[in-house]
Amino acid sequence: MKRILLLGAGRSASALIHYLLQHAPAEDWQLTIGDITVDHLQEQLAPLDFANAIQFDVHNETQRAAEVGQADLVISLLPAIFHIEVARECLKQEKHLITASYVTPEFRELHEEAKQKNLTILMESGLDPGIDHMSAMAVIQRVQGMGGKITSFKSYTGGLVAPESDNNPWNYKFSWNPRNVVLAGQGTAKYIQNGEYKYIPYHQLFRRTDMLYVEGYGHFDGYANRDSLSYREPYGLHDIPTMLRGTLRRIGYCAAWDVFVQLGLTDDSYTLEGVGNMTNRSFIEAFVPPAVSPSETLQQRLCRYLSVSAEGEVLQKLEWLGLFEETPIGLQAATPAQVLEKILVGKWKLEPSDKDMIVMQHLFEYELNGEQHELTSSLVVLGDDVVQTAMAKTVGLPVAILAKLLLQGKIERRGVIIPIHLELYEPVLEELKAYGIDFVEQERVKPAVGEAGMAQRFR
Amino acid sequence: MKRILLLGAGRSASALIHYLLQHAPAEDWQLTIGDITVDHLQEQLAPLDFANAIQFDVHNETQRAAEVGQADLVISLLPAIFHIEVARECLKQEKHLITASYVTPEFRELHEEAKQKNLTILMESGLDPGIDHMSAMAVIQRVQGMGGKITSFKSYTGGLVAPESDNNPWNYKFSWNPRNVVLAGQGTAKYIQNGEYKYIPYHQLFRRTDMLYVEGYGHFDGYANRDSLSYREPYGLHDIPTMLRGTLRRIGYCAAWDVFVQLGLTDDSYTLEGVGNMTNRSFIEAFVPPAVSPSETLQQRLCRYLSVSAEGEVLQKLEWLGLFEETPIGLQAATPAQVLEKILVGKWKLEPSDKDMIVMQHLFEYELNGEQHELTSSLVVLGDDVVQTAMAKTVGLPVAILAKLLLQGKIERRGVIIPIHLELYEPVLEELKAYGIDFVEQERVKPAVGEAGMAQRFR
Repeated sequence: MKRILLLGAGRSASALIHYLLQHAPAEDWQLTIGDITVDHLQEQLAPLDFANAIQFDVHNETQRAAEVGQADLVISLLPAIFHIEVARECLKQEKHLITASYVTPEFRELHEEAKQKNLTILMESGLDPGIDHMSAMAVIQRVQGMGGKITSFKSYTGGLVAPESDNNPWNYKFSWNPRNVVLAGQGTAKYIQNGEYKYIPYHQLFRRTDMLYVEGYGHFDGYANRDSLSYREPYGLHDIPTMLRGTLRRIGYCAAWDVFVQLGLTDDSYTLEGVGNMTNRSFIEAFVPPAVSPSETLQQRLCRYLSVSAEGEVLQKLEWLGLFEETPIGLQAATPAQVLEKILVGKWKLEPSDKDMIVMQHLFEYELNGEQHELTSSLVVLGDDVVQTAMAKTVGLPVAILAKLLLQGKIERRGVIIPIHLELYEPVLEELKAYGIDFVEQERVKPAVGEAGMAQRFR
Repeated sequence: MKRILLLGAGRSASALIHYLLQHAPAEDWQLTIGDITVDHLQEQLAPLDFANAIQFDVHNETQRAAEVGQADLVISLLPAIFHIEVARECLKQEKHLITASYVTPEFRELHEEAKQKNLTILMESGLDPGIDHMSAMAVIQRVQGMGGKITSFKSYTGGLVAPESDNNPWNYKFSWNPRNVVLAGQGTAKYIQNGEYKYIPYHQLFRRTDMLYVEGYGHFDGYANRDSLSYREPYGLHDIPTMLRGTLRRIGYCAAWDVFVQLGLTDDSYTLEGVGNMTNRSFIEAFVPPAVSPSETLQQRLCRYLSVSAEGEVLQKLEWLGLFEETPIGLQAATPAQVLEKILVGKWKLEPSDKDMIVMQHLFEYELNGEQHELTSSLVVLGDDVVQTAMAKTVGLPVAILAKLLLQGKIERRGVIIPIHLELYEPVLEELKAYGIDFVEQERVKPAVGEAGMAQRFR
């Protein structure tokens, strides 16, 4: 028997729990699920003798040590900041660990100790990071295996709303932490293009979008992530001339979101005055310059200030959010970003009948036998419902499958690792297909120089 | 005899030293000047038995304690970060202290102890902060004394180049720390207008300028400082509907500087890749999107990206800086802001024959006997030469005069204070007139509502 301790039983854990429960009898697993509240799991787990839920407080050292001590493998879907404490406990008690979060410098420091103790700390094993690494490496290693040389790699991921539930002018609902959506992109985006480093400051980010097309799902806007460079090394693309990682939204979202950035509404660094009496309208008012004539409305002033069309879709999106209405914010103290989040959460809620959607697209260019190839690898995953969301499936299932492989002894790599190795990504990508998580590839030989290539819309 | 210890003998100390030496015999002062290097002072001080210069290291605790111990008054023009250590030593040994720097929260904590020990720590006693407080309070207390109610107060200061030395298209040279000029305005500007709090994010700051006019010197652009609100309390303007503090530049400077902000060149938060091989041109290239046609030049791309006219003054200013030339940067590792500073320092240097200029303007509106008044109080100070700059005079002379008043026992206020009190500002402003530091006031009764008031150009 193998004991699994799963920490974190929130929304994004639903598909992971489902998988672990399904495979537990055949694999001879005993599953313990710990979180601050686990009431929602009691009914589901009560009839099962191979699974139980416990109230778990990650800050309680005694409990942390005791529960980790009983496990063979720890899986953590807790908020990323709590992982390092869990990892140190795992190292101390010599247990494997899997998370879906980024390898931070703190984690990198644990690598040697984990290796020496014959332990695997497997990180970045969810969707993004996770499936993005695995699916990219599958293409990269195949192309390199044929003798091809990759000259350009752009990769975009977005958590969106499924077309059938898409009924607002932003074509967006929250399937993920709203705060992270509001703060997304802050800092400077850094990438490389044709061998030159490029930098996009935050206030230009939502203007410098790339247009993407996914067969059957239409066009998307892509904007660059903060760090597109750090995966050149692990992907084995040391000298690649062009590399960019980004985030996907529906066409038009970025142009409207740019209004928030330009106004300063996404700033989380200071507290607004008088939030208690603030309405949506007075919130916007605080960021828009005064009128040049007494008859000029707030909307007109905003349009003039930011060169937004008074008849266009951007203003329609803002109007739909009720930004110009005297709706009380309902917070006592808040940063601009917190006020914006409050307004958006009221409008972009994923309803019980709604389905979400994950879209990922990799765009490769490579040279092979003197020819220039373009290869696109695209993934679309739809949620089943508001519990088994596309987000929960794509984050939880790769973690679950990797957990199974690790407990089966099929992962022998030790230390702090990410799933960029063939023996990790190949079986995971294969098994994910059964869950509808399956990439579609399109490839063509690029016309020779002089003919019109693929339109490069990166403004 | 009174002993003065002056710490900091850099450029901005020249007028202060001159004043102290002039008054030392009559006032029976013994002056000791300490700095890391004081070689430039030896010749001047050698014949004087009432003054000497010493090599002084603020980090050397023993020396710090010994020198402070011998003084009756310490004046510090060291960089602001070193003041707190000097202040703690002064408190310990019960000595008065004067600086030209801002009262930080750390200083505020020293207030009670200073009061109890009957000591004065007099801060914000230079130009800005300093003369701005004094000259504003002179008007505020006069208007309030007449029974007037101040409804609007805007105040702008700029360190510029004198018209006779103004020979570049930016109409600007460095008379102050270049790094501070490059980083100026970062964060969010917060002010109040007609009773409403207003916020300008950094990336809009140089677009939302106010136009000012100073008799005999023409028009200026004013942009808002980060914090316009914290002086409502000390100025006694608790409920003022409109208050803004800002910085002055010549017309056109802000529009061109905005290009740097929009590109991201003033960012000091990350290090660029490959700075060692960078030229002015490749620096700009890293922030400008790719060409849409093979014939498009870097200048054309920049103009298209930021909606800058290809024939206009903004591009001329950029061209004049040599930004599109293959001039090596000459740094090995740097942030964008550090690269920009390096380029600007080479171009905006105050030459030995150049004179600088300080411009300050306060704009008040007040109600008195049912009438609306507008009152403008303006100051222009020209440098004598590259040593006795307008900056050195306006920073150093008020500090010097306040030092004299304190040693004469004419300042009885104790604790951590700033020169907003009548018994401080009145004699200082009066004595400054003899040095050509004299405000000119213009006042008019505003036309009744309905008639055209003063144009408000804050976009």
